[in-house]
Amino acid sequence: MSLRGLGVDLRCRCIKTESRRIGKLIESVELYPPSPHCKDTEIIATLKETKQEICLDPTAPWVKKVIEKILANKAP
Amino acid sequence: MSLRGLGVDLRCRCIKTESRRIGKLIESVELYPPSPHCKDTEIIATLKETKQEICLDPTAPWVKKVIEKILANKAP
Repeated sequence: MSLRGLGVDLRCRCIKTESRRIGKLIESVELYPPSPHCKDTEIIATLKETKQEICLDPTAPWVKKVIEKILANKAP
Repeated sequence: MSLRGLGVDLRCRCIKTESRRIGKLIESVELYPPSPHCKDTEIIATLKETKQEICLDPTAPWVKKVIEKILANKAP
């Protein structure tokens, strides 16, 4: 679940992160670097069908793989 | 400039990409993998102050560096 959309950027957006490997469902991935409001990087994926926003764990190998694939011009 | 916000996801979002290294101005970066509507990965950065959306070149070394730093829990 994420706090996004509440217009509240004054703290971290993610409460918990998705552990299942949902690469195939991902439409886009947004990366938020550490900032004064939140000391850790946050990654929020938007899903294709539902447009649901899901927080991903930036340290999870599968998440890094998803991003690598996208940068390599491949679908995750 | 990007076509985002026009509710039009049926083609590529980016017309041109930013060549200047604007890492320090970036608040977040959104990655769009290749899809039926756009055959290439697109990367759209949102800037801190203006919230302006700027397309970045996914193949540019400095863009990959920005994403690497964010994944390493560092500000770009």
